[in-house]
Amino acid sequence: MGLFAVIPAGGSGTRLWPASRAAKPKFLMPLPGPRSMLQATIDRLSPLVPAHQMLVITGGAHAASVARQLPEIPEENIVVEPSPRGTGPAISLGAALIARHAPTAVMGSFEADHHVTDPAAFHRAIRAAVPVAEEGYLVTIGITPTAPETGYGYIRVGEPIAQHQGTMVQRGLAFKEKPDRATAEAYLASGQYLWNASMFVWRVDTLLAALRTFLPEVHEILTAIAAAWDTPQREARLADLWPRLPDVTIDEGIMEHAERIAVVPGSFGWTDLGDWDALARVLTTDAAENVVINGHHIAEDTSATLVISSGRPVATLGVRNLVIVDTDDVLLVCDRTRAQEVRRIVQRLKGQGPHSLV
Amino acid sequence: MGLFAVIPAGGSGTRLWPASRAAKPKFLMPLPGPRSMLQATIDRLSPLVPAHQMLVITGGAHAASVARQLPEIPEENIVVEPSPRGTGPAISLGAALIARHAPTAVMGSFEADHHVTDPAAFHRAIRAAVPVAEEGYLVTIGITPTAPETGYGYIRVGEPIAQHQGTMVQRGLAFKEKPDRATAEAYLASGQYLWNASMFVWRVDTLLAALRTFLPEVHEILTAIAAAWDTPQREARLADLWPRLPDVTIDEGIMEHAERIAVVPGSFGWTDLGDWDALARVLTTDAAENVVINGHHIAEDTSATLVISSGRPVATLGVRNLVIVDTDDVLLVCDRTRAQEVRRIVQRLKGQGPHSLV
Repeated sequence: MGLFAVIPAGGSGTRLWPASRAAKPKFLMPLPGPRSMLQATIDRLSPLVPAHQMLVITGGAHAASVARQLPEIPEENIVVEPSPRGTGPAISLGAALIARHAPTAVMGSFEADHHVTDPAAFHRAIRAAVPVAEEGYLVTIGITPTAPETGYGYIRVGEPIAQHQGTMVQRGLAFKEKPDRATAEAYLASGQYLWNASMFVWRVDTLLAALRTFLPEVHEILTAIAAAWDTPQREARLADLWPRLPDVTIDEGIMEHAERIAVVPGSFGWTDLGDWDALARVLTTDAAENVVINGHHIAEDTSATLVISSGRPVATLGVRNLVIVDTDDVLLVCDRTRAQEVRRIVQRLKGQGPHSLV
Repeated sequence: MGLFAVIPAGGSGTRLWPASRAAKPKFLMPLPGPRSMLQATIDRLSPLVPAHQMLVITGGAHAASVARQLPEIPEENIVVEPSPRGTGPAISLGAALIARHAPTAVMGSFEADHHVTDPAAFHRAIRAAVPVAEEGYLVTIGITPTAPETGYGYIRVGEPIAQHQGTMVQRGLAFKEKPDRATAEAYLASGQYLWNASMFVWRVDTLLAALRTFLPEVHEILTAIAAAWDTPQREARLADLWPRLPDVTIDEGIMEHAERIAVVPGSFGWTDLGDWDALARVLTTDAAENVVINGHHIAEDTSATLVISSGRPVATLGVRNLVIVDTDDVLLVCDRTRAQEVRRIVQRLKGQGPHSLV
């Protein structure tokens, strides 16, 4: 029956403000374009997973956009969660729904807003993960780090446990939160750490067993919801039970506690496109390292500057290393090295307004 | 009969692009506001000159705006030149028109797009200039320099020739073009140089006599035009003769050659508001030295930045010393120290478009 896929499509991407908003989240945006990040995720998976075995878990506010962006996904595979509860409940619900008809199927879980430059290498990594998942491991894809990033979590790896067409699969020893700079540099130097891309492959029964062990109340609730899924009680059961779920990521809720974890190292130009600087780095620049999206850039003595236009021309003079994001109702001008801090502006707007801009 | 005033209202102010355009020149803009620079010029003159003795010389494209901005100026005092020919023909035409009915009147000439912070001191300087002008001098107001500016012309001054209520009037020895930095510093150190603010006071017959000496063909043409002014031939004469005039400033055409020049030193917070940096310096800033005009500035770790909004909020993070000018159809982001070079962008747009932005 082949691989299943669960794609949690949530989160607004506050560091990509003001292009990304609560009402227009990052995964629906064409970054870097022309397809949206969600569409690119589905495109990337399509050689591995048939469309009728893909499940997208999203919020009610975005269900219609998801449905229209992904005409190839059957309607019943676009699952609307009543409220956001983190990736733990979302991915586990996907597993429970797959398990209804395919109780030992292998599924992968893939965020809807990550970027990959080398899909063939991504496919090799997933194909290496499947046989290890079939043996009962919780498998994660660990990204071979290229810099001491402080914006990502890390996975410490141990001894090899399998090999698939030249790809060495290693034991996963520990999941680490985002480190400080010195720790990140030590991780990189050691060669024992990979980036955690929140990309998982496992048998649905393996995941559900881990869920019963580490998050028993989540297991109980999701089992009850899945049991009612094909009955007239689905809506009522969801409305009644879903709000009782904790807000927890799959990493914190399960992976940080589980024992049988395997890691497939991958190098496929992965980034979470977490901020404007990360986006600029995956785009093709001109000779002065400038990039413009959706507009005309009149650049005089300007370098390393990213311009996201709403269609209007943008002129710059004597500046470097800026991010300029022009939208219909607000403009952002930001130092590129400070791009991670854009969420400070979003936090401030949430507090004191104008709230329309968040 | 008191003082007359001639206000040449021309020039687009390319360094204040994109707020200033060919179609929306600097003198019509509310900089720093709330009144336009032209209105502020008239306001500043009104204690010295009755409205019916003020002449505004402007282009056909701006005549309607001028008329509506200045309801106090009689219609016949808003003079439309058929095409731009520089301040030489414009100011001299004003003098010739005044001379029709008041052949020995004293007039002042004042650019429509200069800024003054201390009008009372400005009035004292003009009042000191009038008796010297009555004696037959070409009088100019020289601004006591506060910095080695390379964006202004300079006037070298000589021995005192008069005194008026504590203001010493000196002989003007030479008009100097915009200097390089080293020359400007030498000028400042010598104490013998004042800024040329293109601000003049003279009897109309003194000016017309100088015109006959140094620009005889201009004198001849303007005399013919003035003679036809109150006849049915005005339009035809203007259309026929005006295009034959050379394009020349009053400084180059007359002041650089004339002998009997007097200079009244003035210190009244004068600036030509030539570029965005100059504007920022006359505005009241907040504690971080930021200024915002016409919008809401969401500033995180931002300093010394000028934001001219078109009403939309502008968010900045981790930047300093920028000029951000947001208009309906184009956005400018510029280093403040490079503000003089904004004309490079205008030149480029004139060459390769989009022409609508110029």
